[in-house]
Amino acid sequence: MNPIRPNDPTTSTAVHRLKDGSLAREDAAVIIEEPLEIIVDDISYATTMRTPGDDLALAAGFCLAEGLVDRAEDLGSIQACDLEDANQVTVIRADEHTPPETRRRAPVTSSCGLCGRDMIDDLLQCLPRIESEARISTADLLGLGRRLQEAQTLFRPTGGTHAAALFDANLELLSVAEDVGRHNALDKAVGRLLLDRRLSEARVAVLSGRCSFEMVQKVARAGIPIVASVSAPTALAVDVAQRIGITLVGFLRRETMTIYAGEGRIADLQ
Amino acid sequence: MNPIRPNDPTTSTAVHRLKDGSLAREDAAVIIEEPLEIIVDDISYATTMRTPGDDLALAAGFCLAEGLVDRAEDLGSIQACDLEDANQVTVIRADEHTPPETRRRAPVTSSCGLCGRDMIDDLLQCLPRIESEARISTADLLGLGRRLQEAQTLFRPTGGTHAAALFDANLELLSVAEDVGRHNALDKAVGRLLLDRRLSEARVAVLSGRCSFEMVQKVARAGIPIVASVSAPTALAVDVAQRIGITLVGFLRRETMTIYAGEGRIADLQ
Repeated sequence: MNPIRPNDPTTSTAVHRLKDGSLAREDAAVIIEEPLEIIVDDISYATTMRTPGDDLALAAGFCLAEGLVDRAEDLGSIQACDLEDANQVTVIRADEHTPPETRRRAPVTSSCGLCGRDMIDDLLQCLPRIESEARISTADLLGLGRRLQEAQTLFRPTGGTHAAALFDANLELLSVAEDVGRHNALDKAVGRLLLDRRLSEARVAVLSGRCSFEMVQKVARAGIPIVASVSAPTALAVDVAQRIGITLVGFLRRETMTIYAGEGRIADLQ
Repeated sequence: MNPIRPNDPTTSTAVHRLKDGSLAREDAAVIIEEPLEIIVDDISYATTMRTPGDDLALAAGFCLAEGLVDRAEDLGSIQACDLEDANQVTVIRADEHTPPETRRRAPVTSSCGLCGRDMIDDLLQCLPRIESEARISTADLLGLGRRLQEAQTLFRPTGGTHAAALFDANLELLSVAEDVGRHNALDKAVGRLLLDRRLSEARVAVLSGRCSFEMVQKVARAGIPIVASVSAPTALAVDVAQRIGITLVGFLRRETMTIYAGEGRIADLQ
């Protein structure tokens, strides 16, 4: 495999490719995956396997999603280690905060027997209710799906990335990110806007991957009322979206989509 | 959304579906996602968002992948909470063990500046070198890809699951699992064989999702020499597979595949 080049999130490796019944020696592009350690207030809070690039945005978005900060001002200082190719970002939060857990907790602390309604009620306590007058038509959603696809410049050669794109009320692209992890891609897209003090402009998140509970959690913490994914949502994602007022669209494809929650914001249904 | 039914990992919800230019009210199947807390030696070690079902296998496979146990005998006792729908498995390890970290650590503790070769060397210390005389032809690999697809009974209605299947030296199916998470699916397939004392029979793992470092880590810890995925590998997965002697195949599709590492086990190339 070729050495990892700075600032290029792909590399190439010699492979054998089976095509038309025979094996040929070729070079193939692969997406880079490396750990990033996120340190919060002197605690090694989490390590995520991510594609290097825009690490400050990733850390900022992650801290917002985790509830460690609520706004850009809470990120007192955020910086990457000075060493080239270092895999570490340090966040020192402004003002007084409850110290973070010594390690990242999962989104839920499930106690024994916690299930069904109880579990969902527990999850909901951590998430804001999304009040927004935003509206979008299915035709515009299909258009945003095409724009996400156009923006997936790392996916085309490697087949190994997920993407997240955020759009404003005029359907202008505000930020887009690709990463080996779908959670990281969304954290980077959100974190970039948080750092640029423009997150309040975001109205629609468009995702390439599965929409699980954690993806809805990140969208909700970012205050974004509409999320559309190329892939499937989970039952918990649908239930949470319905209950906190997020519009959730799945299977956003060339000419089709499925609306699972918050259909009041779909202009065609008015 | 309909109530969650015990022992059924799918549910259904009312949706609006856009098709042929118009929106129709329908019911759609969605895959269930709930947290599972894994307690190891009285420590709440990890919580994973998973599809309920075969939770003991999930916990067993997870403990093996994490290096908390090396063989079935190390799982002194493993049990789910008695309450119906409880989301908790408790593992008490046999004999003396170093206590686990108070929380799950990421696969790597990256220190500042750790990168490139250093990082990979650090990762490799935790993984066994895979010595195996196993061989497989590309024709047989294509056949296993079709059998994985046939086994994806939850994917067809929901589009929301990943799958992992393990095969023996005679290409007999040993275990298969579907889950909202690709890591969980592999942990369940491996853990089922670990609990049944049959893991040493496994020769090939076939996966529906991305093959990242953590997937290669799980395959290596299970002692499986060949892994083939429908989707892309990451650069780190390829590098680690090459260095510890795992045969790694990606983009396993109807008539094509790409061989990234360990081509010595591909019978066609002899």
